[in-house]
Amino acid sequence: MSVTDTRLATLPTPCLLLDEAKMTRNINRLAQHAASLGVALRPHLKSAKSVEVARRVLKDGNGPATVSTLAEAEVFAQAGITDIIYAVGIAADKLPRVLDLHRAGCNLTVLLDSAVQAQAVAAASRGAGIKIPAMIEIDSDGHRGGLTSDDPELLNIGRILHENGAALRGVLTHAGESYFAVGAGAQAIFAEAERAAVVNAATALRAAGLPCPVVSTGSTPTAHAAKDLTGVTELRAGVYMFFDLVMAGIKACTVDDIALSVLTTVIGHQEKRGWVLVDAGWMAMSRDRGTANQAVDQGYGVVCDAAGNVLPGLIVVQANQEHGVIACRPGSGAILPELSVGTKLRILPNHACATAAQHQSYHVLPQDKGAPLLAWPRFSGW
Amino acid sequence: MSVTDTRLATLPTPCLLLDEAKMTRNINRLAQHAASLGVALRPHLKSAKSVEVARRVLKDGNGPATVSTLAEAEVFAQAGITDIIYAVGIAADKLPRVLDLHRAGCNLTVLLDSAVQAQAVAAASRGAGIKIPAMIEIDSDGHRGGLTSDDPELLNIGRILHENGAALRGVLTHAGESYFAVGAGAQAIFAEAERAAVVNAATALRAAGLPCPVVSTGSTPTAHAAKDLTGVTELRAGVYMFFDLVMAGIKACTVDDIALSVLTTVIGHQEKRGWVLVDAGWMAMSRDRGTANQAVDQGYGVVCDAAGNVLPGLIVVQANQEHGVIACRPGSGAILPELSVGTKLRILPNHACATAAQHQSYHVLPQDKGAPLLAWPRFSGW
Repeated sequence: MSVTDTRLATLPTPCLLLDEAKMTRNINRLAQHAASLGVALRPHLKSAKSVEVARRVLKDGNGPATVSTLAEAEVFAQAGITDIIYAVGIAADKLPRVLDLHRAGCNLTVLLDSAVQAQAVAAASRGAGIKIPAMIEIDSDGHRGGLTSDDPELLNIGRILHENGAALRGVLTHAGESYFAVGAGAQAIFAEAERAAVVNAATALRAAGLPCPVVSTGSTPTAHAAKDLTGVTELRAGVYMFFDLVMAGIKACTVDDIALSVLTTVIGHQEKRGWVLVDAGWMAMSRDRGTANQAVDQGYGVVCDAAGNVLPGLIVVQANQEHGVIACRPGSGAILPELSVGTKLRILPNHACATAAQHQSYHVLPQDKGAPLLAWPRFSGW
Repeated sequence: MSVTDTRLATLPTPCLLLDEAKMTRNINRLAQHAASLGVALRPHLKSAKSVEVARRVLKDGNGPATVSTLAEAEVFAQAGITDIIYAVGIAADKLPRVLDLHRAGCNLTVLLDSAVQAQAVAAASRGAGIKIPAMIEIDSDGHRGGLTSDDPELLNIGRILHENGAALRGVLTHAGESYFAVGAGAQAIFAEAERAAVVNAATALRAAGLPCPVVSTGSTPTAHAAKDLTGVTELRAGVYMFFDLVMAGIKACTVDDIALSVLTTVIGHQEKRGWVLVDAGWMAMSRDRGTANQAVDQGYGVVCDAAGNVLPGLIVVQANQEHGVIACRPGSGAILPELSVGTKLRILPNHACATAAQHQSYHVLPQDKGAPLLAWPRFSGW
């Protein structure tokens, strides 16, 4: 099997490939859906961690964004992105960095779900003379943080923020449990639960005379499955720009939509065991086994030829730090093709966020198939 | 619960902590054991990926080393370490970088287990006028690559290397399956299987008139459990300098020996579910679930207070990208202590190599308890 794309022949393996045409298709799909629902789209940049990707996924290249770390906020603020939600519960000792971002011109919004956090944000706001915008996290599915929309703490927290120097910006929820719902019908139920939870919370805040300009929902499955977002002002999603096997397994995308892969080289065989060894181990793929409990367990990833065509039935069945073991998926009836030492292959990841995080740059196959590869840097850390 | 070590109070969380005193104890333990067995120690630097750690673990600060990527070889060669084995099967298109390392003064040895690889190494050697040293990988436990010691290909590969311009340096094995053997007795069986496999292979090569100066075995469990290494010249191990919960689970160390942890901050609660949310998710811990199939499943890690004392029964039961969920281990009968928002905790990792790889530096607690923290950079990539 030859390398059909000569542009890949000189890349050191393992490395991360990004198919720009697929990414663009994914970006446009959700942008159009959000527009059709009449809500703003606030992409989550935690999967991308790349200014180049941000330029392509944000409205006009620098529109509203979501991040998962202050390091992301700092990099994107430096790139001129000024409307960012840091969507992880705030701790008091992170507020000096939040204030520094405001002083640098970035209108960073924090997230919280307790009175103690609200008091800390209000105190920091008063101390600095900067009204830190804060959203209250709402729990719509029992996934992790947040208050249920009928929790009396909601109004207490809202008042602490509004009356003590911070800016109550609104309510936010994320249906992380939708990652386990298969098909658009099941995902739409989570989308409606997200909508109902934040709209109820917003209604309660407003009835108490408190402001709630932003009503924010979203996850990749619910963002695509939502049919009616009445009362919601903005939609968030992250992995959709790349997609992955976990999302394909719950039918939020097809395998053909997956824009990320890891280029790897065959480095050995164990013929009696039906194994092909490659140089993409867990360091290149991550340890994410997100498909382990799905209907089809994809091991550490689905194997494609160097051109990106799936080799039916072949997956990475095991991974050591720098070794991947390719074999036929148990029960697939597939026959292992001859893959001689030196053959280049691509592996589609279980979880794009986790796999991308193992790499320092994207090697981009541009939409113009004749153009040379691009290298877009990624960053990491907190 | 207060931060007992004021040096930690200013660190941004999540971040990686390294207890230098524990690391030194671990380093000395294996160095003494190797000396008592009469073999050289060739530490594997794939876990550390740090010149500062290499200085402390290698003999005289720059002695024999093992690496898992050419990027590691390049960084350590730049630091003056000149005797390195790249212990992952070589692909032909990596040989130009191997030759560049030789030209820069690093005597890098490659690993292979097929005639096609041996021919490529021999051809590259002749082309460059540099005898690339190569070791033949031996399979002692069915774990991944390598020839069994009775495989006739062994002599064929040996001859290709020796007679065509490369340097046949010896034989190497790694009992990766020993990671699933609990206790020193069970691990000693793998150590003896490693020894027998490479000694048999070395004997066969020498009987055929081929050189075999280096006979290399090792993994962290077998290196510690080995009782007799007659015929072996060197021992390799990597994670032992840090240890982790996987190693503690198979009794290769105690939990108290674990030198790495992730410092984290409490960011929320779900009291009805018995959850404490922290800012160490899988991005900080890795997705490694290496204890999942051990006698005690440690989730995504064991929870300690900020001073490093284990909080009995508390583990990270779930992890999202930037959220960890701490709860009592099911069946532990533990009672969740009060851990208010802002509390600092430490999480011991399942797998030190995977957790460390998520971070850009070690925050080092020096052996001198009064000294300020050090920051040792890590590197990544291929």
